[in-house]
Amino acid sequence: MSNELNNNPHRRYNILTGEWILVSPHRTKRPWQGKTEKHNSEKGPDYDPSCYLCPGNTRTSGETNPDYTEPFAFTNDFSALLPDTPEKKLNDGLLKAEAEKGICKVVCFSPDHSLTLPLMKTGDIKKVVKMWKREYADLGSRENINYVQIFENKGAVMGCSNPHPHGQIWSQSSIPTEIQKKSKHFKEYWQENKRSLLADYLKQELELDERILVQNEHFVALIPYWAVWPYEAMIIPREHHQHIGQLNEEEEQSFAEIIKKLTIMYDNLFETSFPYSSGIHQIPTNGKEYPEWHFHMSFYPPLLRSATVKKFMVGYEMFAGPQRDITAEMAANTLKQLPEKHYTKEV
Amino acid sequence: MSNELNNNPHRRYNILTGEWILVSPHRTKRPWQGKTEKHNSEKGPDYDPSCYLCPGNTRTSGETNPDYTEPFAFTNDFSALLPDTPEKKLNDGLLKAEAEKGICKVVCFSPDHSLTLPLMKTGDIKKVVKMWKREYADLGSRENINYVQIFENKGAVMGCSNPHPHGQIWSQSSIPTEIQKKSKHFKEYWQENKRSLLADYLKQELELDERILVQNEHFVALIPYWAVWPYEAMIIPREHHQHIGQLNEEEEQSFAEIIKKLTIMYDNLFETSFPYSSGIHQIPTNGKEYPEWHFHMSFYPPLLRSATVKKFMVGYEMFAGPQRDITAEMAANTLKQLPEKHYTKEV
Ligand SMILES: O=P(O)(O)O[C@H]1O[C@H](CO)[C@@H](O)[C@H](O)[C@H]1O
Ligand SMILES: O=P(O)(O)O[C@H]1O[C@H](CO)[C@@H](O)[C@H](O)[C@H]1O
Repeated sequence: MSNELNNNPHRRYNILTGEWILVSPHRTKRPWQGKTEKHNSEKGPDYDPSCYLCPGNTRTSGETNPDYTEPFAFTNDFSALLPDTPEKKLNDGLLKAEAEKGICKVVCFSPDHSLTLPLMKTGDIKKVVKMWKREYADLGSRENINYVQIFENKGAVMGCSNPHPHGQIWSQSSIPTEIQKKSKHFKEYWQENKRSLLADYLKQELELDERILVQNEHFVALIPYWAVWPYEAMIIPREHHQHIGQLNEEEEQSFAEIIKKLTIMYDNLFETSFPYSSGIHQIPTNGKEYPEWHFHMSFYPPLLRSATVKKFMVGYEMFAGPQRDITAEMAANTLKQLPEKHYTKEV
Repeated sequence: MSNELNNNPHRRYNILTGEWILVSPHRTKRPWQGKTEKHNSEKGPDYDPSCYLCPGNTRTSGETNPDYTEPFAFTNDFSALLPDTPEKKLNDGLLKAEAEKGICKVVCFSPDHSLTLPLMKTGDIKKVVKMWKREYADLGSRENINYVQIFENKGAVMGCSNPHPHGQIWSQSSIPTEIQKKSKHFKEYWQENKRSLLADYLKQELELDERILVQNEHFVALIPYWAVWPYEAMIIPREHHQHIGQLNEEEEQSFAEIIKKLTIMYDNLFETSFPYSSGIHQIPTNGKEYPEWHFHMSFYPPLLRSATVKKFMVGYEMFAGPQRDITAEMAANTLKQLPEKHYTKEV
């Protein structure tokens, strides 16, 4: 496939956002004398008395966590969004603002402080999937909640301040920018073809088999053609589902399995607990129909060359647009060849 | 002004990009137990024999820097873009890509390794402004160069691998995403009002005087109403110029002065050499007319609460949209009250 294009500087088009990304494949050999991150490979204790997420511990808010044994969700003590914000709009010349309502939650994936998703049993990850489904349905059904963003910040370099395995859910009244961009492109494609944009894309990727990382009965994990982050990946359900609420028992199991496999690949890449932000993009909960949407989960990991050297999205990226050095194909090739077993586990 | 709105979670609209940003002013008191950055306050030597940007030193490419005494620009030894990339397009089902040509340069602001913009003399910053003008004109006039992005990554936390005062210029054949977004909004406003969107915005800000940081005869520095980064700022020329090439001698001087004043404020805020990425947004160099455009320079600094605690743009920000904790007004108030003299200088 078009090697001349792939080996030289080029731009790739993101079919979901309509934006371009600059790829500079010849630049991988650049020496790095800049900032390095801490290597983080020691596994912590399974209970930490000073951790505000461990079972039975008291949080800064004064509340005490139950002795939970399954995934546990609670309202964020420092929520960025609040349910009772009074309605208000400002339209003063060129200043435009409006009050925003929302609910922010924290989801502890496991009572065990020392774990991360790749180290959890598939059955336990499945419980996290079920928790996400419950929260998506519950938050989505509340008044004024029109979008539910499920995400995880993993690792200190991704602004995560506590290694206890957990994610977050921020739900709110307006539809966020990223969702609006994707909605537009899903819709345009649907109107023209009456098919899911992502289902067609998945079909093409499966035929080409150049960026597929791992697949099972119900899900495929791949590096999208337009990936921004060095080892960015996307998990796509084979079935054209609009949201995670549509997953049946078997699909939940498949989803849990593929999350485990992908995150093991990540950890094995640099033999470190791989940092990333992950998130699920799915339909708004405003009661409208979005037949064009195809839910998916994306992983944006910052590491570039080793456990300590990350990609900086700075000057050019902030002012012009994203840029990457290794191609999506190079990233996929590297990840695919890694052993299936987690590097910390004995044979 | 609408305090109820400002004290509660709300969204603000960016008139230049058409995107919204979430503001959570009640969240500033959140404790921080996460990652901290190195405090960087020692001034280095004025010449470093191992620095590849110091005058007379040899770079990894084998080239030797001249004994420059004025700002010095050269082609980046690890350019992300190259001038001779062969033309090529891919349009294969849902994969879309095209070759990209460009030229990347490094601009050393000063021969003195120990300096930064806030520590340089205004006259010497003016020489940097003149260098930017020259490069914008020269690169912009080359075949296949339709946009010239001038930027600086300052500080290790912003991916800068060398403290020698320098910026970069990446110029390329296509118009980057961020410029396209702004073009759209400048144009819509122009078509409706036959006035510059940014000139009208500046007028309103000057009347309100809530977010103005510093001003002089030809320029104003302010925190935009829709600022994303905690202490994000923007320098706007009073005159409706489309690009820096239009600055006369006096305006160059004014521009240099306000850059110095703003960056001194930044350094004084946490008494550290303040990291940021800055960039100039101006019209494409494709020969088309863009009467609606109003050039400006923006600063995106990551520090939030101290020299060591930065804002992380991660999970929610990546998957939904930008979020900030302190309001633009709080940030402006804090910066405005700082002494005018650089904290390292004796009275
Ligand atoms: O070329 P440099 O300074 O080594 O690289 C720095 O700036 C570039 C442009 O913003 C970024 O792409 C890199 O990630 C960053 O480390
Ligand atoms: O709420 P946390 O985990 O303390 O905060 C983290 O995630 C948030 C949502 O992505 C970000 O806004 C913060 O900058 C980050 O530090």
